[in-house]
Amino acid sequence: MKIKMILAYDGTRYLGWQRTKMGPSVQGVLEGALFEILRREVRVEASSRTDRGVHAEGQVVHFLIEETPLLGKLVYGVNSVLPCDVRVRSAEVVEDGFHATLSGVGKEYRYFICNRAVEDPMRRLYAWHVHEQLDVEPMRRAARGLVGRHDFGSFTTIKSEDTIRTLFDIQILVNEGQVEIRIFGDRFLYKMMRRLVGTLVAVGKGILVEDEVFGLLERPDRARAGVTAPAHGLFLHKVYF
Amino acid sequence: MKIKMILAYDGTRYLGWQRTKMGPSVQGVLEGALFEILRREVRVEASSRTDRGVHAEGQVVHFLIEETPLLGKLVYGVNSVLPCDVRVRSAEVVEDGFHATLSGVGKEYRYFICNRAVEDPMRRLYAWHVHEQLDVEPMRRAARGLVGRHDFGSFTTIKSEDTIRTLFDIQILVNEGQVEIRIFGDRFLYKMMRRLVGTLVAVGKGILVEDEVFGLLERPDRARAGVTAPAHGLFLHKVYF
Repeated sequence: MKIKMILAYDGTRYLGWQRTKMGPSVQGVLEGALFEILRREVRVEASSRTDRGVHAEGQVVHFLIEETPLLGKLVYGVNSVLPCDVRVRSAEVVEDGFHATLSGVGKEYRYFICNRAVEDPMRRLYAWHVHEQLDVEPMRRAARGLVGRHDFGSFTTIKSEDTIRTLFDIQILVNEGQVEIRIFGDRFLYKMMRRLVGTLVAVGKGILVEDEVFGLLERPDRARAGVTAPAHGLFLHKVYF
Repeated sequence: MKIKMILAYDGTRYLGWQRTKMGPSVQGVLEGALFEILRREVRVEASSRTDRGVHAEGQVVHFLIEETPLLGKLVYGVNSVLPCDVRVRSAEVVEDGFHATLSGVGKEYRYFICNRAVEDPMRRLYAWHVHEQLDVEPMRRAARGLVGRHDFGSFTTIKSEDTIRTLFDIQILVNEGQVEIRIFGDRFLYKMMRRLVGTLVAVGKGILVEDEVFGLLERPDRARAGVTAPAHGLFLHKVYF
């Protein structure tokens, strides 16, 4: 029987989603909690192997179990043994063909920027502090140019053969000293979200102009894109199936 | 010369505003930072001696210094030596008669409740998790009855002669699984905010009815009020002068 779970986690103290011997991982604590509750080893598969320090509101995982579970009891039980920075939001039985990674048709990431002269201490673990006032209109124009099917080779840190991806939409919301960037896409290259945000922030600061951003799509060049935005502002918000 | 500063802090790891030998205090780290920058001992006076674990977005302090400071440089310098969970938002020169505590005419506190079945891990340090769905309309009706000049003796934990206070307004906002209670008042009794919130939450759960809350104002009785809401949902938002 296949179970799909939606997870939220504060990535601050984790080395990322993926289990590693180097230190705590979200996969590690979830599999540990499932072992405690189900009394057998369960291997979970996630929609996104989020990087060190990246947060999630809607990570999706699947795994196989033998018995038919009481889903409410499973969620409650797993949450009772998980550390307080990881939470199972829901669980459901899915058809055998479901796969957290392969069945996904798109993802929404959200990136938060604390755009005030002085950082908000309550947001220091959940938003990138950019003290220069960002000019949002050029950022929105650049974002419109990034939406669509393009070669995003400039926006990754690893050399790769296939760097054609589709961005469905980019929304930039401004509210009381906070800039929030929502990016909807099909599949994301390694560090692509953070490279896109770093580039949009460079536009907002006037370091890059929109035409240079569009040029990065036409002639991929990793050296000319903006910096990689820090991990702690990034949230995996939702996976679409 | 008298300086007024506005501070924001994450109260999680502090024993409260007030300097103590028992552990870290916000007053202690601020006075320490001022000593590093100004090279003399400065004693600061705050609008509110926030309790252990309570946060602030708009704590106000005043202190005296001898030289005329470059205010921007002072803010930058103090922030550069403060720990990252305390920030000076602004500084200005005020007239000698100004007093952070005595010149205040009112305060706004905000209390955040994460009202979802499963806690949001990103809000675990900044909101009280109440998993039962709160019925907000009776809470709003009870809040309207609390506004005004009343004997709030039921809403403190310390026996006191003078428990007459004025609440100017209470607003209850609901947004995506979060309930936010904004309380505006003149002066607050010890733990009054958290007792008011605890009582309103008891109304939202159906444990207390509105008439019982109004009865607490007519016949003060500390035993019959709701529980004291936990410190970590409470923010000193603004002090009015």
